[in-house]
Amino acid sequence: MFLCSATGGGAHKFADVWEQELAIGMIKQDELDSLVAGMQFVLSTVVGECFTFRPKEDTKTDDRSMSEENANVNDTDMQQNFSCPIQSTLDSETDHEESNGSKVYTLDRWTRKVQRDTISYSSAYPYMLVTIGTGVSVLRVDGPRKHERVSGSTVGGGTFWGLMRLLTDVENFEDAMKLAEKGDPTKVDMMVGDIYGKNSDALEKLGLAADIVASSFGKLVSKEDPARGLTQEDLARALLSLVTNNIGQVAYLNAKLHKTPRIYFVGSFLRHNMISQRRLSYAIDYWSKGEMEALFLEHEGYFGALGAFLMTQNIENKADGFFQWKDHP
Amino acid sequence: MFLCSATGGGAHKFADVWEQELAIGMIKQDELDSLVAGMQFVLSTVVGECFTFRPKEDTKTDDRSMSEENANVNDTDMQQNFSCPIQSTLDSETDHEESNGSKVYTLDRWTRKVQRDTISYSSAYPYMLVTIGTGVSVLRVDGPRKHERVSGSTVGGGTFWGLMRLLTDVENFEDAMKLAEKGDPTKVDMMVGDIYGKNSDALEKLGLAADIVASSFGKLVSKEDPARGLTQEDLARALLSLVTNNIGQVAYLNAKLHKTPRIYFVGSFLRHNMISQRRLSYAIDYWSKGEMEALFLEHEGYFGALGAFLMTQNIENKADGFFQWKDHP
Repeated sequence: MFLCSATGGGAHKFADVWEQELAIGMIKQDELDSLVAGMQFVLSTVVGECFTFRPKEDTKTDDRSMSEENANVNDTDMQQNFSCPIQSTLDSETDHEESNGSKVYTLDRWTRKVQRDTISYSSAYPYMLVTIGTGVSVLRVDGPRKHERVSGSTVGGGTFWGLMRLLTDVENFEDAMKLAEKGDPTKVDMMVGDIYGKNSDALEKLGLAADIVASSFGKLVSKEDPARGLTQEDLARALLSLVTNNIGQVAYLNAKLHKTPRIYFVGSFLRHNMISQRRLSYAIDYWSKGEMEALFLEHEGYFGALGAFLMTQNIENKADGFFQWKDHP
Repeated sequence: MFLCSATGGGAHKFADVWEQELAIGMIKQDELDSLVAGMQFVLSTVVGECFTFRPKEDTKTDDRSMSEENANVNDTDMQQNFSCPIQSTLDSETDHEESNGSKVYTLDRWTRKVQRDTISYSSAYPYMLVTIGTGVSVLRVDGPRKHERVSGSTVGGGTFWGLMRLLTDVENFEDAMKLAEKGDPTKVDMMVGDIYGKNSDALEKLGLAADIVASSFGKLVSKEDPARGLTQEDLARALLSLVTNNIGQVAYLNAKLHKTPRIYFVGSFLRHNMISQRRLSYAIDYWSKGEMEALFLEHEGYFGALGAFLMTQNIENKADGFFQWKDHP
């Protein structure tokens, strides 16, 4: 019988059907083992795989401690890809100086795609791996084939898409992303400034800016007709922000608990989803005061299948980052 | 001019109106200072203020290390107040034995209201205070008038109520709670068992039960008509679970970071909301493996106003827990 490896609960429950209807035997590979094996293989072998976003004017890209060992910076200004201004809902609209003299850039400038080098050296570990599919899993990775699911969230891609389908008539994820790019979330979310006014002493004491979100969808609490004046674009954007910020926060809190400066975000939710990638880059930098970095991978979404194949072929990842056939040294 | 203290951004922005229209001068008290002062006063002086929920059959109430100093147990079985069975979506439907021999109870038995004694001793600090209004603030409290806002979430009461108003025609929060009690969230949420099947080897390896939520609202992803077969009750319950679990997780991760076994949950979101109180009790116990406890207060929702009054009257909280007039020793 022809054999083929497969991973993921959605595939594994059809093993009998494969065998009975297609005469293909399924070699079931563990979902998270496959994901990590595939991701590590690509990270170790594909140049230009890994990237993050930084502010447009930021000059500090090269001297970040977490990348100084192997900085390989290849900036691509993505500004032209964003035709509409992106609302800043985590920091103030206006860039400002911190008390230590460093400049704080707001989200709408967080547009510069920056390449990060591959990781193949032992000092790269541990790192957090956040996989965002229908739900969210948070893994701590300590080395090749050494990983553990430490946390997760039920608020993931399925939450975004499930609620989008109830609230709008959009028919696919790509269209939802196009809608979200044009939306104004401040028509849906209650901003800190909506509660305190724009220039309040209380804000200074709280250390909060007027234009950060206080409550996702909170502006609809006191409107007479909650839907009035809202477009599908606004709802899409607010929903995307809710899910993205929440995943970022769960990832950040776990990274802080495990003391890991790198957080890799992968999974189908991030495909064609520049808004979430930029927001996660910004939010992780903002919350960690520049001590952590959100990282993304060009081939996200395919690591599970690749890893299942590699594991079935007995291809092992050596500690120095090179792969080889286990049975053919 | 008559003077009156007030707290909260929503009140403070009307200070001019008070003065011009009502000839009342507003003494603005800080929101979080007021909350903590009011809460500590009530905790130190009102017997029977503090409670949590435990499983119906649990006999371990008295020997919890966090309450052994001053256990004052007064159980009230709330089972009769819940006419419909509450779905277990964090653990399996069936109670089971852990490998260490202790019994794990499922959420549907988590119905016994248990009194916790007042805290007035120094070993009570630090603790986490989670205030759930429109948004969520997470404070670390280190002593009387010593507290810091360390985290928060935009997913709070405003998110629940804003989305409820878009998805249902319910007109007030109390009715929403009544709806939620009758809802079946498994018609809305994607369960782990929906992905892996009910009795999969993969589940055992993942350490997940078939009937925990994998993705909030995730079951609507693949349905042809996402709303078909859903009642307002189901939507209310799924939305309440999403918001409650998420707040619980953010609180738990922060408590773990700050190494505090006690988490107090207060705020208007919890009023008439036994589902969230029971779920938070269960979830914090479950995630922390019994090392942390979610605590609630009978007078939640009024601590800010009380604290603003106390602070304006110069009533100070002494370290031993007794209050006195600052100017009248």
